[in-house]
Amino acid sequence: MIRLDDLENGNFIYQDTDGFLFGIDAVLLAHYPRLRKGDEVLDLCTGSGVVPLIMEAEAKKREIEVHFTGLELQEEAAGLAARSVRYNGLFDKIRILRGDVKEADRYLPAASFSLVTVNPPYIKGGHGLIGSADQRNLARHEIAMTLEDAVRAGARALRMRGRFTMVHRPGRLAEILPLLSRFQLEPKRLRLVHPGRDREANLLLVEAVKGGNPGLSVEPPLIVYGEDGSYTEELLALYGKKGGSL
Amino acid sequence: MIRLDDLENGNFIYQDTDGFLFGIDAVLLAHYPRLRKGDEVLDLCTGSGVVPLIMEAEAKKREIEVHFTGLELQEEAAGLAARSVRYNGLFDKIRILRGDVKEADRYLPAASFSLVTVNPPYIKGGHGLIGSADQRNLARHEIAMTLEDAVRAGARALRMRGRFTMVHRPGRLAEILPLLSRFQLEPKRLRLVHPGRDREANLLLVEAVKGGNPGLSVEPPLIVYGEDGSYTEELLALYGKKGGSL
Repeated sequence: MIRLDDLENGNFIYQDTDGFLFGIDAVLLAHYPRLRKGDEVLDLCTGSGVVPLIMEAEAKKREIEVHFTGLELQEEAAGLAARSVRYNGLFDKIRILRGDVKEADRYLPAASFSLVTVNPPYIKGGHGLIGSADQRNLARHEIAMTLEDAVRAGARALRMRGRFTMVHRPGRLAEILPLLSRFQLEPKRLRLVHPGRDREANLLLVEAVKGGNPGLSVEPPLIVYGEDGSYTEELLALYGKKGGSL
Repeated sequence: MIRLDDLENGNFIYQDTDGFLFGIDAVLLAHYPRLRKGDEVLDLCTGSGVVPLIMEAEAKKREIEVHFTGLELQEEAAGLAARSVRYNGLFDKIRILRGDVKEADRYLPAASFSLVTVNPPYIKGGHGLIGSADQRNLARHEIAMTLEDAVRAGARALRMRGRFTMVHRPGRLAEILPLLSRFQLEPKRLRLVHPGRDREANLLLVEAVKGGNPGLSVEPPLIVYGEDGSYTEELLALYGKKGGSL
């Protein structure tokens, strides 16, 4: 079923309730980079376009001009993203392209973006894969693309000094950091997301700078739930009452 | 001045107040690995022997038999460590060797330890170096040895499935993780240490397993100071009232 949700930031989003619904990871990713005036943002694996839809609202609020491009492989998700852009009247701000990250150089000029965001499939290959290559599995598993494909496409699309921002699983940190470095994306900021203060991290946010100097800041931990089981103040500030699931 | 300090765990330690005094990093490192019965522990860059002196007290408390070897380049520090071992009557538990980590294969048989701990110099080469290659500078700067030397020596000394545990600066995480992997030490546990809940991490603790499978747990953050500026409960539990400085 196609549903229209209020992002409670001025924008609305179409999602297919039988497909892949955006989660807290997309919300955290959208808030991680510090948007700058004139940013040209590329969101890889944009799905229903949630990341540019959140970031555009932020840019509007701060009254800075930013342009977004969302790239999505799956036809249905790309169609919904385009429909959301139309619904919100954002033709001049967000452009949705349907295409394969592995062939991004066919759609996108090199070194033309100042910021790349990506919420890629987290799970290696077919690990734990149940069922076929449907929408949800393509979004969760590295079937159609790998982590390396995402990093390569992002590195190519970025100008020198451009920022590459990704949300992923901490279990793959030891693979992510050297992979970024290999593509000249120097990790500069890392934030671990813990469901509770005394829980292991289950998400990470990382920002790398193309051609940056070595030296990583590990920022304060982001704690999702307080001891009473409700969202922490920081989460509420990002997120309001609108939900997804981890 | 040579001073004898009470570690408040049953052991005492000699330190030279004009030399390098141990800090909270050594205390955190000593508590990071889970000691197992029969462990053969190698502490590289042991300095005044603080790490084995703390770990030995822990083993005694848990009534498990563990043996420690501490390797230290600097003659004075190694001498103080040996003196502390003698003072505490630990000849049968802790052995102190004076020698260079880069030549550890001359002193230590390969693949003979189940656990390696190391608190290496944190600062790259001569960065920010003031003054000469005195005791403190050798302990803080990569003058006599590099991070890679420590990892290589540890990897060589460990048996398969042995654990390599290190304390270091988060700024070098993007260098540390691939370096460990390169020496077949697969990062398995990572803990970030933050001076306060809303502060960047200033230390990291990492444990890698020789020949382990990929997959890293990022453990709950370790917060050093509470909002009132005093040590948090977790710190006090490790540390008591005995101090060092970050």
